[in-house]
Amino acid sequence: MVYTGTIHLATQGHTDMHDITGEVQRIVRESGIRSGIVTVFSPSSTSGITTIEFEAGALSDLKRLFEELAPEHREYLHNLRWGDGNGYAHVRAALLGPSLTVPFSEGRLLLGTWQQITFIDFDNRPRQRRIIVQVVGE
Amino acid sequence: MVYTGTIHLATQGHTDMHDITGEVQRIVRESGIRSGIVTVFSPSSTSGITTIEFEAGALSDLKRLFEELAPEHREYLHNLRWGDGNGYAHVRAALLGPSLTVPFSEGRLLLGTWQQITFIDFDNRPRQRRIIVQVVGE
Amino acid sequence: MVYTGTIHLATQGHTDMHDITGEVQRIVRESGIRSGIVTVFSPSSTSGITTIEFEAGALSDLKRLFEELAPEHREYLHNLRWGDGNGYAHVRAALLGPSLTVPFSEGRLLLGTWQQITFIDFDNRPRQRRIIVQVVGE
Repeated sequence: MVYTGTIHLATQGHTDMHDITGEVQRIVRESGIRSGIVTVFSPSSTSGITTIEFEAGALSDLKRLFEELAPEHREYLHNLRWGDGNGYAHVRAALLGPSLTVPFSEGRLLLGTWQQITFIDFDNRPRQRRIIVQVVGE
Repeated sequence: MVYTGTIHLATQGHTDMHDITGEVQRIVRESGIRSGIVTVFSPSSTSGITTIEFEAGALSDLKRLFEELAPEHREYLHNLRWGDGNGYAHVRAALLGPSLTVPFSEGRLLLGTWQQITFIDFDNRPRQRRIIVQVVGE
Repeated sequence: MVYTGTIHLATQGHTDMHDITGEVQRIVRESGIRSGIVTVFSPSSTSGITTIEFEAGALSDLKRLFEELAPEHREYLHNLRWGDGNGYAHVRAALLGPSLTVPFSEGRLLLGTWQQITFIDFDNRPRQRRIIVQVVGE
């Protein structure tokens, strides 16, 4: 069995992070599928999905890491070609990846206690984002 | 069809790496599912899963990379707030990701010859870890 | 239902990037499975899979990021042990990951408009590569 849900988010960009665990769990429940896997996928090349303990300290630390790996304000060939200034966002997104797959059992996501599914918008402006939540199981 | 297995590991922390390929293969076989995908998931925010050629040189090189990206001994806001000293582990885990999905066919993981499924514990103390192995297929 | 496809690629190595979106979409169509997930997996420890806007600027920016994170020409313990000079490729591949899972619906990959599935060969020589495309759904 397969069930497709969608999450809609208004984001601020600049490595804006959103805890979407509750929405993913809600979609798994409404699917009626009891056990399986759920793929959380961002159909975008300037955002990504991971898990983290969703508290302000760890989020700031992760944002600093991305700024050190691929600083927003340096030269990117993408920017020279397209002039949109979000070259840093493309490489951060490619490194992190757009997809996360999480197992669930008896309708419940098998996450750790301090582990939240987190959408990160790296783009350099506010966006209306859509995230695909594909539930597969029995 | 869906089958859920669990791997239990005693780890030392500090980017301790464990080859769990044999355990994942064993669970795929005991599931009786012939072909499909297996999601190997760490329900924790200070560890992650990837693949690597599991030999001491490459493992040391990867450990050095993580120490360069997010050194254990520098200031993290997570540490200032929570005092547990594992801020570096949270950001390394978020960057690597907690989930790996591997295809299998005729009950056999479709890995490369020199490619092992590897659990990495970034935390700063020994832990008893549990890894979820979710098998989906037919 | 499960369907296994394979993509064959001749690559140049040295962080050579290939857009494989069309091949993955073709395999999903030929599977006859209407909705589900597709896992694109590289059975190798010196390559990986992600998504990026596949244009020359962003690709060069990503290549620069990998060279900064794990330079090709520095000392790696893997190289000292095995003498094959591709230690940088092993750690880049482990950081990026060998697996990407993408949802599809009505036979169509649910990718963003500017988002292409991209195979990256980090190895230091030309290779004949095989990529597994595992389709799971109904």
